[in-house]
Amino acid sequence: MSRISYVNGKYLHHNDAKIHIEDRGNQFADAIYEVVAIEGKMLIDFELHIERLFRNLNELEIDLSLSKKVIFFISNEVINRSRVDRGILYIQISRGRATRNHSFPKNNPPSIIISSRATKFPEYALKGIKVKLMDDLRWKRCDIKSVSLLPNVLAKEQAIRAGAYEAWLVDSDGYITEGSSSNAWILNEKNILKTTPLSNKILGGITRKVLKEISLFNDIEVQDRAFSIVEAKKSKEAFITSTSNFILPVTYIDDEPIGTGESGPLFKRLYNLFHTHLSIQRKNNNIF
Amino acid sequence: MSRISYVNGKYLHHNDAKIHIEDRGNQFADAIYEVVAIEGKMLIDFELHIERLFRNLNELEIDLSLSKKVIFFISNEVINRSRVDRGILYIQISRGRATRNHSFPKNNPPSIIISSRATKFPEYALKGIKVKLMDDLRWKRCDIKSVSLLPNVLAKEQAIRAGAYEAWLVDSDGYITEGSSSNAWILNEKNILKTTPLSNKILGGITRKVLKEISLFNDIEVQDRAFSIVEAKKSKEAFITSTSNFILPVTYIDDEPIGTGESGPLFKRLYNLFHTHLSIQRKNNNIF
Repeated sequence: MSRISYVNGKYLHHNDAKIHIEDRGNQFADAIYEVVAIEGKMLIDFELHIERLFRNLNELEIDLSLSKKVIFFISNEVINRSRVDRGILYIQISRGRATRNHSFPKNNPPSIIISSRATKFPEYALKGIKVKLMDDLRWKRCDIKSVSLLPNVLAKEQAIRAGAYEAWLVDSDGYITEGSSSNAWILNEKNILKTTPLSNKILGGITRKVLKEISLFNDIEVQDRAFSIVEAKKSKEAFITSTSNFILPVTYIDDEPIGTGESGPLFKRLYNLFHTHLSIQRKNNNIF
Repeated sequence: MSRISYVNGKYLHHNDAKIHIEDRGNQFADAIYEVVAIEGKMLIDFELHIERLFRNLNELEIDLSLSKKVIFFISNEVINRSRVDRGILYIQISRGRATRNHSFPKNNPPSIIISSRATKFPEYALKGIKVKLMDDLRWKRCDIKSVSLLPNVLAKEQAIRAGAYEAWLVDSDGYITEGSSSNAWILNEKNILKTTPLSNKILGGITRKVLKEISLFNDIEVQDRAFSIVEAKKSKEAFITSTSNFILPVTYIDDEPIGTGESGPLFKRLYNLFHTHLSIQRKNNNIF
């Protein structure tokens, strides 16, 4: 089955989907991106992703002439042409092709890439995953969802080599910031559900935001509060959230079990609540 | 005149020089690069650049099957076919094309891009440039010459908007690390020539290395020593070094003049010594 990807105005066979070597995304990581979940051919929480995309474009002063509606249209074209029922959509917008110079090129049209692919949900991970703690080496503007992801790549690889599913990054004060591609949550000893507060130390995940709202709506109190390694290791339950994993239970931090070392009751509740949200989203038509 | 660029085994017209959208360089900044000066069709200090390239490949565990000699051959082909007499060569090597996943793909051939272009030396800058101080927001492995350059791009742009030529990045202790694409030097009040020591806070520039060696050979003492904003502002002379700028005098830090606000005698001496080095390099054939 052939994937069709969109690059700067053209729908291309995925193999032919290329950008210029002097694209600023390729030479400078001067690009932002979004990953959106696809369930039953529907884009989940698309409005929230596209809002964040425009916030990031604004942050980097990339002037995109396409409207949200047009991006939504192209995204659905890519999904339909690629026949993706369940998977992910990837949108990347760079400052465009320009002769290599660090400073911003003037009046340069941005590059836009939209692709999609079928993925399977990692069912096995619902039993519980291990996270590996490591120093957060990233830059001081992790709130910008840019493709400047080398530190994240290195962290994820190191985690996997240690038999973990994800890294948990630790700041210089001993607090957990987030995963290499997910947000971090704990239910601490005192039964307080915490997730690292928004700041330039973390990327504010859409799943994080949605799950918080769902929790509050269902009378589950969530606090935006930093938590240390010590607190995390003593927690009753722990989770990661991300677009592609939704919510997964963390049952080991390094080699120490969290709670019983199995997923707990709060995980099951949040998981079900999030799936109710997914069913509602699937019925929506996401029209602007 | 048409530029010819090399991409994964092919010499292409520069306009057609493209890489796949799922190249790890484009999606994750999972790539390293080198910029080499070309003078009279000759690659300056190529051996040092290629050594650093392989050190960086090793650091990221990118397994390149091409030898240094082959890269040298291709580089010269690109220069000759593009008819560049004076300018820069750009080499970028990524972990290759792979379905998007943070962790390293297995047995994935790296992508290699080599291009060149004619550039003019910024003669006007020899009179002296202004640097703008700003917080160093970069990650904690600046010693790796990766394309994860978004912080550098933002710093350079901010500097230029402030009427400066370059940014000088300042760490959390008030010490100057380096520029957005250059190393930093001062001749302090006590006549000590200092450049920021090598660590994971800076990228060890080839021009920095060469100029240090030339200086020592000519009985000019250089110390690898950190210097603070306060010390820099009181300095008698200051410089930046980089592959494309060689050495330039810094005559203003923010709005404060350095020394007389004009380039000084040590600059002239170092500039001349570096140009002697360039003449020698031009006569070399750079053969491995």
